[in-house]
Order: sequence, then structure tokens, then C-alpha cells
Amino acid sequence: MVSSFRFMQNAYTSRRKLLRSRMAERGLSTLLVTHPANWYYLTGFTGESGALILDRSGTTLITDGRFTVQARQETSGVRVLLQHGALMPSAGEFLKGTGGTIGYDASRLTVAEFKAARQGAGARKVWKDASGLVEGLRMRKDVAELGQMRKAASLAVGVLQGVAKLLKPGVSELELAAEIEYQMRRAGASGPAFETIVAFGERSAFPHARPTAKKLRKNELVVLDLGAILGHYCSDITRTFFCGRAPGRIRGWYRAVREAQEAAIAAVRTGVACGEVDATARRVLAGHRVGHYFVHSTGHGLGLEVHESPRVAKGQAQRLEPGSVITVEPGVYVPGVGGIRIEDDVAVHEQGSEVLTRLTRDLIEL
Amino acid sequence: MVSSFRFMQNAYTSRRKLLRSRMAERGLSTLLVTHPANWYYLTGFTGESGALILDRSGTTLITDGRFTVQARQETSGVRVLLQHGALMPSAGEFLKGTGGTIGYDASRLTVAEFKAARQGAGARKVWKDASGLVEGLRMRKDVAELGQMRKAASLAVGVLQGVAKLLKPGVSELELAAEIEYQMRRAGASGPAFETIVAFGERSAFPHARPTAKKLRKNELVVLDLGAILGHYCSDITRTFFCGRAPGRIRGWYRAVREAQEAAIAAVRTGVACGEVDATARRVLAGHRVGHYFVHSTGHGLGLEVHESPRVAKGQAQRLEPGSVITVEPGVYVPGVGGIRIEDDVAVHEQGSEVLTRLTRDLIEL
Repeated sequence: MVSSFRFMQNAYTSRRKLLRSRMAERGLSTLLVTHPANWYYLTGFTGESGALILDRSGTTLITDGRFTVQARQETSGVRVLLQHGALMPSAGEFLKGTGGTIGYDASRLTVAEFKAARQGAGARKVWKDASGLVEGLRMRKDVAELGQMRKAASLAVGVLQGVAKLLKPGVSELELAAEIEYQMRRAGASGPAFETIVAFGERSAFPHARPTAKKLRKNELVVLDLGAILGHYCSDITRTFFCGRAPGRIRGWYRAVREAQEAAIAAVRTGVACGEVDATARRVLAGHRVGHYFVHSTGHGLGLEVHESPRVAKGQAQRLEPGSVITVEPGVYVPGVGGIRIEDDVAVHEQGSEVLTRLTRDLIEL
Repeated sequence: MVSSFRFMQNAYTSRRKLLRSRMAERGLSTLLVTHPANWYYLTGFTGESGALILDRSGTTLITDGRFTVQARQETSGVRVLLQHGALMPSAGEFLKGTGGTIGYDASRLTVAEFKAARQGAGARKVWKDASGLVEGLRMRKDVAELGQMRKAASLAVGVLQGVAKLLKPGVSELELAAEIEYQMRRAGASGPAFETIVAFGERSAFPHARPTAKKLRKNELVVLDLGAILGHYCSDITRTFFCGRAPGRIRGWYRAVREAQEAAIAAVRTGVACGEVDATARRVLAGHRVGHYFVHSTGHGLGLEVHESPRVAKGQAQRLEPGSVITVEPGVYVPGVGGIRIEDDVAVHEQGSEVLTRLTRDLIEL
């Protein structure tokens, strides 16, 4: 336990060091980190409320009485302070004593929180939007992170294979979702990475369908989209099934989605713009004349959060970096009929890429 | 199905009508609603992304391609528009055409979102913070909502009773959490209302402990804090157990917490300030000389969200209203030893109050 604690503390320390050099490049002497996944990445603190401040005096975590003991146990080289009253006025009060420009996260901090922090710090402080600074570091997963993500992916694959056996006429979406999340936990996950999607028949035409009491019937499509959190890292996989023998029209759509997904995965490598991965999937679907049925973006970054940088969407100029992990998940959704989606998690390496969710992409007829 | 749809649509329509009269009182001709629980409350839309706008022209929901079909099915009397590009610029663009002052939610909208909406709407618009406007309506649950919350509470009670039987030396926190969430789903819940807390021994001194691989041993405290979402409404209950025969010191702390909790529940009624409920619990704990071990607030509002208005904390002047549902959950946390918490959900009526989570508060020795 101790050696693993030390190992991780070294990782947190070097991440903070790298962050400080990025802060310097942007002319920031102070950074206010208010997003849980970001402060976990930088310190190991797993509490749900807090404000992490990096400044010339060191690294300080301000949190409430529920989390102070825990924060002291989980972190190293971090001063833990108990907030007085609400969080943001306390953080502002602390920032009063810091010099130079303060970076904050405009894409996370609410208008009211920012106002409270500014009031606490006093009118003379200079604030600068530093959105995405920590997220930029998080895009480049290190070897240990990639190892953890492989495990999270393989856990999800195992669960998907297991529950596929339960796909029989009469089973309900809710029952299957319960079984999926239970199996994840049994396999060691701390929980699902997002609300599990189990969608039968017409409901599969909703990309984000919530499970209902609907029961599976013959000749219906089945979309299972699930992911687990294992050791803080997320996985995310989708497979589509057909209950019975799929008619030609469904097979045609399925082929189009599979070709689009495999072409997009083949496009994943260091230096390629995310928008190009998205465009690749779109081109294939358009070639099959089903481009108009693809109503979302091709994928998203994956890591400590199920949706993180980079976005794999239309026109995204962000280039893939070694250590990035993204989902590739094109789909077609035909209102009143159903939907088809195939999703894998793909890691970007210096050379080439690696599919973390290793599972057949054949259409499985039940 | 149809009649239930109509019944709920009537509820949504009358909520929007009431909201419009509140808007008028605050001088708002337009309101931008950006929080999912708020737009669900007002329209029935269950999608995860969108912006709901109430203005003189009616009610408009702007969302992306994943949710447009679903939004049209789930709502009535709501114009559904597909966003072009990102959400907030699209909402801003729409708001260009509205007159008068625009209310927005400063406690939910991020600095970046607000900037994008303002840019889209043009510089000449007047914006006003309308935080808590919808939340204020949500505090007064109607008969149907209270009925649903009773069911969610009784589901949680059933699950707690069931899993208490599994509390034996050797069981791990993670196993028990998995079992709890599985049983919830089996009983019809759409999921847990929050990350289930299972904390053994010293770990129970962390009020928000996350389940780990730690196994239960003889002579350890056990805190189980769980809640389910059933028909969109949340429950939240905590009970504390002891594995073995509890020593006098533990029994003393337990008695203090139980007295504090029962006194605070007795203080719950229409017109009482939330801060007074909190103070009642604190007075009892202080009388037992364990006030310094109580490191969080006494409770929180409960409904569509597990934490909603009102806050039951130190100095809160907000008065309890008929239809409010709050948790009452004092605790003591002794670092290095363990924690004790007892939590129930309490509904406020015109006359008196009602405990929704009906389960013994005796210390159960395993």
C-alpha cells in the first residue's frame, strides 16, 4: 500500500510541476482548480467539494469539514485548509494574499461562483480564463494510466459478453441495465461510467435512451452502450444486436456503420486532427446514403471522465497526441424503426493506435 | 399510457403558468432554463442537453440531434428547435428576437456559457440573475410528487433491510455497494440517487466515504447511506450498525446522534426556519459534548435531485413550506475510530410532518 501511495504521489508531483511550467507560459502565477477530476489528477484527492490553488507559496486545497481528514490522508505536499462558510468566498479570501494573474476555469466555474471568488479576493486582482489547461495535460495519458484504461476496457468487454447471453425475448431494458451494472461492480468497478443504455426496437433510435420497462420482442434491434469506472478510469463500449434474423435493410445499415467505424479507427494516429476522424466516418456513411441518420459526433476523449478532451466532432482542429484515448462511435438512427451504433475505445500511440475494447464487431443475431 | 401522459402534461402546463407569474413579479419577460431537473419539472423532457426558453412567444426547447425526436415525444405545448453548432450561441441567437429582461441562472450557467449566450443575443439585452426561481417552485411538492417520493423512500428502506442481512465479517464495502444498487434496480429504481456509501470501521469517520475492497471485521462500525431514483424522484437514508457488541462509548455516541436526529425531526413543520432544525440537532449533540464531531450540515432538500432546496444548515433563514421534503441526518465522526449517522426523509405538511423512510432507529448489533 505504501509503495503504491508513493508511486502515485510522485505522479501527482510531476503533473503539478508540468502544470506550473504551462502556467508560466501563459503568464499565470496562480491557478484556481475547481473541477474534481482535475484536482484528483493533480493531487489524488477524491473528495466531492474543494478548491485547489497553485501559487508561489505552494499547493493549497480548501475544503469543508466532511473532507479535511480524507484530504490529508490522500495527498502529499498539499496544504489542506478548512473553509469558513461557503467555498468560493473562502477561496477568494485565500487568493487575496497571492500576487500576479489568477487563472480560473471559465468553462466550469458558474457566474455566481466566479463573482463570489472575485469579491473575496478583492477588486484589484487580475483574472484570466485558463479553461482546458489541466485537461490539456490529461489528454496525454502516461503508461500507468493507459494500463488502467486497458483494464477498465476489458472489464466492460467481459460484462457485455456476459449479459449478451441474457438477451432473450421477454427481458426488460431495466432488468438488463441492472444486471450490467451489478456485473460491473462484481468485477471490481467502482460503478458505471455513465447511465447504462439498453434500448430495444424503436427506442434504439434514441442515441441516449434511458432504460424502461419495455420488454424485448422478436425482430427488434438491441443497442447496449455501457462503461465502467475502474481505479478512477472510464471505459465506454457499444454493440448492436438483432433479436431474430435481421432483414436486408438492417444488415445494410449495419454494414455502413461498421465500415464507417473501422475507417474512422484506421484514421486515428498522432498528428491527425479530430475533425478528420469525424469526417472519415461521415464520408463512409454518406457513401451508403445514410449520412443524414447520423445525428451526433463521432466520439470523445475518455479517461478520468467519460467525456473529456479531445472532442471528436465536425471541424475540430485539435490534433491527436500520443497517450490520448478517444471513443469512435458512429451510428445511424431511423425514427420509428431503430438505431445501430458500434463503439470502441482507441488509444493513440507515437506509432499507430490500439483498440482497448477488443470484441467482435459482427452483427450478432439472437 | 395516454391518460398518464395527459395527466403529467397538465402538471407541466400549470407549473409553467405559475412560473410565468413569478417571472412577472420579478420583472422578467423571458427566462432561460439551463438545468436538466428544472426543464424536466417544467416540460417532462428527460434529455441531457438543452436550453428551455419561456418568453412572450411561448415555450421553446433548443437541443441537439440526439434529443429532438425524444423531446417532441415527451413534451406538449413546447416548440422543439434543433441547435446549430454549440448550444449557448444557438440559445443566444434565439434570444435576439425576444423583448424585455432575460432571467438566467447564475448559479448553474458557467462564465463561458453566459458569455456565449450574451454574445449570441447581442449587446443590447438586459440580463438578470434569476437563480432559484424554478427551484422555489420545486420546493412545494404536489400530491403526486409526494406519492412518488413515498415510493422511492419505501424502496430504499426495503433495500436497506435486505442487505443488512449480508453484513457479516468478511464481506467487502464494494460487494455490499454492488448488492445495494442491484437490489434497487431489481425493485424498479432507475438507479441510485448518489454513489452508495458503505463504510466499515475507521472509514466510517469519513462522511462521504467511497466503498473500497475493505472487508468487515468484528467490532467495527458500519455506515450505510443509500438512496434510489424511482419515477424521477430521489430517496436518501442512512443507518449505522455495529459488528459485534457495541462498547459503552459507541452506545453513548449513538444515543446522542439518535436524540439529535429525533429532536430535529420534531422541529420540522411549516414556517420553521431551516437553520432552526439544524440548530436543534447541534444543541442536542453539544449537550452530549460531541458537537465538535458533527462536521456537516443537518440536511438538505430532496426531490428530483438528491440535493436541492432548501438547505438545512447553520443560519439558513429559509422557512419550511408545505410540500417540502428534507433529509435530517446528524452524525458524529471520530477520526481514527469511526462515525455514526442516522438519516431520514421528512415531508412537511400544512399540519405537522411525515417521516417517509419508516425504519427502526435502534442500533443494530450484528
